[in-house]
Amino acid sequence: MGQAMKIYKKRDFPVSNIRRLLEPGPIVLVSSRYKGAANIMTMGWHTVMEFSPSLVGCVIAGGNHSHDMIRKSRQCVINVPTADIAMTVVKIGNCSGADTDKFGKFKLTAEAAIEVDAPLIAECYANLECKLADDALIDKYDFFIFEIVKAHAATAPKNPKTIHYRGDGEFMIAGGSRSYRKQFRPGML
Amino acid sequence: MGQAMKIYKKRDFPVSNIRRLLEPGPIVLVSSRYKGAANIMTMGWHTVMEFSPSLVGCVIAGGNHSHDMIRKSRQCVINVPTADIAMTVVKIGNCSGADTDKFGKFKLTAEAAIEVDAPLIAECYANLECKLADDALIDKYDFFIFEIVKAHAATAPKNPKTIHYRGDGEFMIAGGSRSYRKQFRPGML
Repeated sequence: MGQAMKIYKKRDFPVSNIRRLLEPGPIVLVSSRYKGAANIMTMGWHTVMEFSPSLVGCVIAGGNHSHDMIRKSRQCVINVPTADIAMTVVKIGNCSGADTDKFGKFKLTAEAAIEVDAPLIAECYANLECKLADDALIDKYDFFIFEIVKAHAATAPKNPKTIHYRGDGEFMIAGGSRSYRKQFRPGML
Repeated sequence: MGQAMKIYKKRDFPVSNIRRLLEPGPIVLVSSRYKGAANIMTMGWHTVMEFSPSLVGCVIAGGNHSHDMIRKSRQCVINVPTADIAMTVVKIGNCSGADTDKFGKFKLTAEAAIEVDAPLIAECYANLECKLADDALIDKYDFFIFEIVKAHAATAPKNPKTIHYRGDGEFMIAGGSRSYRKQFRPGML
């Protein structure tokens, strides 16, 4: 990997406000652990579903080694990477946990989570600890509904340069921010 | 609204490839029509769910006037706006179709769709015609699963400046693009 990757310093983040991290639509890294083995996958098909309880729905296709690990352990961590590790994110998505120790191969730091056994990825801007809340749509759509039970996020920069997958190997890098706060009705913020 | 808004010239877009439009995670405008009345809402909680059939899942909370219109008509159009109409997008999200004709108030152009009765918004970069494919999670989560049955997208610019909601009235504007195509295994693109 050449140079060392930055480890973000984080603090607790309110689980009811994780829309700030996920609603812009970044590609994420999903880490899991099952029977002692840890794994990581890239994931782009996710949506916030509820503030409280804090719910996120996502598609984890059956072809992914992580699918069974997450389904059986009923846990995972959703990690939000930034542009500085984009190449690593791509490489993680192009090899399989069936024959690769991804934490080792990509020199990522596995930190202990608080509420789940799956590891946090220290080099990511945010880590969301998830427990499987509803498995009703897994068989039909590979759609997992998780409750985020604990969240950690870096305090700087305020607006991370997240990466957003366009398909065909292309990513959009998060650009500038604009506030339209004054146009919002109080209850709509 | 002051100045006239741009109308994008569009052509047919393959429905199995709409990840290119939605996976980066833009805020979208959902247009609907029921019993002769058209409406528009802003929506940020959506995810691609399958390539073929082309499925998208999204949360349309019961408090939205659009919820019942879409549930009863079983149709809508997902429109992808760009930064040039960000202020309009915000205003649409801060008033209700219960007492506002949003096409009229915001001077948006309603075009006829091909496969559904809901109108396309001409000022948006892309228009995805949707039919309700699965209503199993509406009661529990306000979660609608749509099949995109027809899609239209502008050919220029190649990478639209979409807008991505961070919460608290703040939007991220899509930044530059990077290709990592050479790092992808053929089957992973």
